Amino acid sequence: MLHITGTFIDEITHDIPAQNWGAKEWARDFDAMQAIGIDTVILIRAGYKHQATFASEVLSDRVGILPVYTDLVDLFLTEAERCNMRFFFGTYDSGHYWHSGQYREEIEINKAFCDEFYERYGDRKAFGGWYFCHEINTYDNNVMHVYEDLSRHLCGLCDVPILISPYIKGIKQFGTEAISLERHIQEWESVFARIEGLVDIVAFQDGNVPLAELPHYLEANCNLARRYGLQSWSNVESFDRDMPIKFPPIDFRKLRYKLEQGDRAGINKLVTFEFSHFLSPNSAYPAAHQLYQRYREWLQL
Amino acid sequence: MLHITGTFIDEITHDIPAQNWGAKEWARDFDAMQAIGIDTVILIRAGYKHQATFASEVLSDRVGILPVYTDLVDLFLTEAERCNMRFFFGTYDSGHYWHSGQYREEIEINKAFCDEFYERYGDRKAFGGWYFCHEINTYDNNVMHVYEDLSRHLCGLCDVPILISPYIKGIKQFGTEAISLERHIQEWESVFARIEGLVDIVAFQDGNVPLAELPHYLEANCNLARRYGLQSWSNVESFDRDMPIKFPPIDFRKLRYKLEQGDRAGINKLVTFEFSHFLSPNSAYPAAHQLYQRYREWLQL
Amino acid sequence: MLHITGTFIDEITHDIPAQNWGAKEWARDFDAMQAIGIDTVILIRAGYKHQATFASEVLSDRVGILPVYTDLVDLFLTEAERCNMRFFFGTYDSGHYWHSGQYREEIEINKAFCDEFYERYGDRKAFGGWYFCHEINTYDNNVMHVYEDLSRHLCGLCDVPILISPYIKGIKQFGTEAISLERHIQEWESVFARIEGLVDIVAFQDGNVPLAELPHYLEANCNLARRYGLQSWSNVESFDRDMPIKFPPIDFRKLRYKLEQGDRAGINKLVTFEFSHFLSPNSAYPAAHQLYQRYREWLQL
Repeated sequence: MLHITGTFIDEITHDIPAQNWGAKEWARDFDAMQAIGIDTVILIRAGYKHQATFASEVLSDRVGILPVYTDLVDLFLTEAERCNMRFFFGTYDSGHYWHSGQYREEIEINKAFCDEFYERYGDRKAFGGWYFCHEINTYDNNVMHVYEDLSRHLCGLCDVPILISPYIKGIKQFGTEAISLERHIQEWESVFARIEGLVDIVAFQDGNVPLAELPHYLEANCNLARRYGLQSWSNVESFDRDMPIKFPPIDFRKLRYKLEQGDRAGINKLVTFEFSHFLSPNSAYPAAHQLYQRYREWLQL
Repeated sequence: MLHITGTFIDEITHDIPAQNWGAKEWARDFDAMQAIGIDTVILIRAGYKHQATFASEVLSDRVGILPVYTDLVDLFLTEAERCNMRFFFGTYDSGHYWHSGQYREEIEINKAFCDEFYERYGDRKAFGGWYFCHEINTYDNNVMHVYEDLSRHLCGLCDVPILISPYIKGIKQFGTEAISLERHIQEWESVFARIEGLVDIVAFQDGNVPLAELPHYLEANCNLARRYGLQSWSNVESFDRDMPIKFPPIDFRKLRYKLEQGDRAGINKLVTFEFSHFLSPNSAYPAAHQLYQRYREWLQL
Repeated sequence: MLHITGTFIDEITHDIPAQNWGAKEWARDFDAMQAIGIDTVILIRAGYKHQATFASEVLSDRVGILPVYTDLVDLFLTEAERCNMRFFFGTYDSGHYWHSGQYREEIEINKAFCDEFYERYGDRKAFGGWYFCHEINTYDNNVMHVYEDLSRHLCGLCDVPILISPYIKGIKQFGTEAISLERHIQEWESVFARIEGLVDIVAFQDGNVPLAELPHYLEANCNLARRYGLQSWSNVESFDRDMPIKFPPIDFRKLRYKLEQGDRAGINKLVTFEFSHFLSPNSAYPAAHQLYQRYREWLQL
């Protein structure tokens, strides 16, 4: 049975409340990750609008940033090194350029921002991948340009894999706007045909479709990835999309079911969004402490 | 002064986040229930859409269910027996048949499902009642058929009481669509005239109307029940309907007021929705721990 | 560097869930306030609709109130005295009169209610100010009457300062209905011209505008207050307005930034809405415990 061996880190967030951890609390949480076999951490984005995870001169010059009081990239690299984990660096999300026709601006900022990251932290032992934070659910020509141009640029810097984590345009998030499984496959045929050889790993989010339909999506996603030479990971969401509170830790039964189905479909690796809020014994949500217990009991970890 | 002596158990939920308890955590919570005098637990529904509380062949065949990892019915019966409590079994809610014209399907599934429950668990010492999970707020002809047919069927199985827990079409949930107290009384005259002798206990939810109007509703509900030979319980909601977060534990002052008014109106028994999330010292919500303390201090328990 | 030296107390609330504290829990929280230098507590409202903080005969007669089980005004005065703090008494909010043309009714109730408070608690050592709970974001002629008439009445009772805490009609709360900084200044020129000499302290809420624009608003607010002879405090919100959950404790980075900007702008005193839920080591929100730690570490308290 496949275990969860990777997690996103969401410390510059769009919609998840801050836990306000300091260095000591982060170290304790990396210990908890390691205790269940996590070997990969993915910084979901290194900058978002006016926020940054390190004191980036690039972002400061090009978009203006709020003060950075703690170098989170250094902190997470240090913890990843201490715990023998691989660190994926998430790119910058302006919050608007790539949603409009100005995607070239998003590309240019990110090239310079990744250069800056690579110059500062590229020799760190834990650094082992890029994560493209620009999430899509269907074919999007502008974002294809972002992926293509950025991928070519980063391949010039170093040889580490590139990860994306798309969402499914499913009924749980889009209601009547949701698309069918057939349409999902068509859309992602078009995406993968375009980015084959430029992106190495695809980890679809697994929480946008009803549980009963998930096996079909996992199978389709694995087949698609295989045909285009991508590794197929699953982003096993550990938060619950079915509740009026956005978002609490997921019901263990749902998590277990999704993990079992990912394993059955032949997924290469299971990662989660995300450990520290929703699956951690240190989480600000007490239900996450219990989820961690149930998860460990189940896998006898 | 009447105490809370019953609680719903909401472990297959519509809108309350999972606490992810295992058997040990449930045992601890039954201890806490017992410590304040709870003698009745009501499983709010034994199945909901594709989820089930035990590995039901009936639901598996007729609607398809997700894997059942723990037999919750056995777990709750075992705990209820250990703590000398009575257990009410909540029926299956398809989530759609009974909202449409297909209520006959809802009835047929539930007959077979209750038969299956009764064959498996009917001899358990704690089993002591049925709970009809199909909640209404006004007269609904389709649901009358559900209550009637199912009640007649279950009376053929054994002689235990049948409980319903309607809601009031009140301003706190329905705004301008809310109905007046007079209209509420008319509607429930029609319901009770139809189900007299088929349903034994009615526990109106007490959180849908403003606190200041609650005494009038409690009085009206008690009178109605008495005239039609039903026992009158009150479902004292221990969550707060007045907050933007849906739902936190209620303010103790509101809880106490509702309990006092229930006592004054001549309610036969007070139950709550529900102990484990909103009133328990073990809840994932820390405010519930304090609510438990305030409740115990007040009643010197 | 200016510290947070005051907090609101929100124990009759509009939208913040109850923590269900008793006298012992409140005492412990006043200890925590004192430990970081808080010398001022502001009861946000002493009555709201049918709820009251003490068994007021005035409110009972004029609007009808629910039972008051604990005299919170006495409790907070007692704690403030024990901890050498100043207590501001927040007025009554009917929830409707002052939003309609019936503001005269709001004034009359409040005159009698403040008289009643003053008669009962006016000689208490901690009592040191009035807080007008009727919040506005722009010029409002009806509320000007409330401020004027009530201020004149209270000046006849005793000589303590009067505080208001307006909000900014900013983009984070009002979206496309938000007003510009220029318009904000014009509106508040009109307000201050009207209430000069009648209100002593203005503490604008600091969470309604984007962080990047906050420095301009703080500067403008300080200038305005100075020109009209008011003290300029800042109401540094310790809850997060950027999350789908309404409301969690704020991200420490945002809190620190807002405090630094308040200090830089020449604010006279920093207060927060509010300590006990969002910044306290005793909060029902675990993220608040961490926020308290981060805050203390930063200021070496």
